[in-house]
Amino acid sequence: MAEDPSQDVSETVVTAALIVIGDEILSGRTKDKNIGYLAEYLTAIGIRLEEVRVVPDDEDRIVEAVNTLRAQFTYVFTTGGIGPTHDDITADSVAKAFGVPIDIDERALALMRQRYEPERLTEARLRMARIPDGADLVDNSVSITPGFMLENVIVMAGVPRIMQVMLDAVTPRLKKGRKMLSRTVRVEAPEGDLAPGLSTVQAAFGDVQMGSYPFFEKGTLGSHLVLRGTDEPRLEEARIAIWQMLRDAGFADNARDVGGDID
Amino acid sequence: MAEDPSQDVSETVVTAALIVIGDEILSGRTKDKNIGYLAEYLTAIGIRLEEVRVVPDDEDRIVEAVNTLRAQFTYVFTTGGIGPTHDDITADSVAKAFGVPIDIDERALALMRQRYEPERLTEARLRMARIPDGADLVDNSVSITPGFMLENVIVMAGVPRIMQVMLDAVTPRLKKGRKMLSRTVRVEAPEGDLAPGLSTVQAAFGDVQMGSYPFFEKGTLGSHLVLRGTDEPRLEEARIAIWQMLRDAGFADNARDVGGDID
Repeated sequence: MAEDPSQDVSETVVTAALIVIGDEILSGRTKDKNIGYLAEYLTAIGIRLEEVRVVPDDEDRIVEAVNTLRAQFTYVFTTGGIGPTHDDITADSVAKAFGVPIDIDERALALMRQRYEPERLTEARLRMARIPDGADLVDNSVSITPGFMLENVIVMAGVPRIMQVMLDAVTPRLKKGRKMLSRTVRVEAPEGDLAPGLSTVQAAFGDVQMGSYPFFEKGTLGSHLVLRGTDEPRLEEARIAIWQMLRDAGFADNARDVGGDID
Repeated sequence: MAEDPSQDVSETVVTAALIVIGDEILSGRTKDKNIGYLAEYLTAIGIRLEEVRVVPDDEDRIVEAVNTLRAQFTYVFTTGGIGPTHDDITADSVAKAFGVPIDIDERALALMRQRYEPERLTEARLRMARIPDGADLVDNSVSITPGFMLENVIVMAGVPRIMQVMLDAVTPRLKKGRKMLSRTVRVEAPEGDLAPGLSTVQAAFGDVQMGSYPFFEKGTLGSHLVLRGTDEPRLEEARIAIWQMLRDAGFADNARDVGGDID
């Protein structure tokens, strides 16, 4: 089974961090769309996203983030900085973080030759075939030029459509933990009125995370109570306890279940 | 002048980091809208956002992020975790990071009394009046309960509408650096074809940052060339050099200026 990590659904928690690389995100010019997508995707497959960092196109900063986070989490994903221009320095920075050489990779070059006529395979584009020694390629079905996985670090494009197909391509190679499940109860009452009851129920269920998130809708201030855990029966017990609390506190008429998991 | 930092437009660079606090962002349940807003806002007022971290509702993780980043950057902003529920631990975590006491603050309490009848000022809501010793309040014109600023750390709500008014409220108290200006040229040609020319122009303008960002539009693969710098005449020289490069390389007919600054 060890050869097929996709089947290795362990009892232990599998964690991840994401490094978003790019001056354009920090200047506000480009609005990141990858954090929310990756967060939802990883949660759905049983990997817990534990931290995100957005860093500039700066080698030292990328190296530091990669080395800090790869030591702390099962996986580190990166997005951005693998294009053909001078500010695309992610591959070289990851090689430096691992202390391994980097050069044009024959496998990546073969893929790029499928896409580009020889005269269009310029020096700039050849930069995109630079892959650190020892990395496996990650397929890119949108624009061919691959990402890569080096030990526990997965390097992907920043363009959302390309990032998404790379994530699909690498997923079968990843270990997954127990899937995080959730239940959400919508209550038309402000958080402050629900907090004491929620806190009491939380105290009785140490193995279920409970959070409350305010919403404003049509002039109504309300709260989503979100219960999260890996054990379905236990989660259901917690949901029933939440409903008992809402009845006791007089909020049940203004509450309803609005589903679970990625809602 | 020193009493009015808003007038102190120094020649030096003013930097910032943002810490987004919340399990709901990392699980993908809530999609962050504050990173892009704050990035654009700070760029516009001459503060350079240098790093963003998203961390869970975990005291140790918040303390570590606050202490690491406040030592490195002029300002650290936080969003999230200042509501009334048990998972709202930002204020206490910031107090711990600074090693200062925290308790119910009379100024915050007076504000909350304006909003809440005494019977609705529950123990849970009173938690929202907990402010670390030595902090200044940051006004919240949407829902009254304030944020705060402790030395160089500014603690704001996670709800975007509330975060935005708190940011407006604190802005007059912040030092600003020279404003980062930009020019963008849109070229209907892929990055890989423009990279050599862009790289040559970049080499001639060390004081202007040049980036290229791909776009897909109506089946066309193109690039935005973005020039950024604090000196307007120099930026204009760089824009003219970019246009010369585009003419020399035969791309001028497929290019146009699409504006500057926050575009």
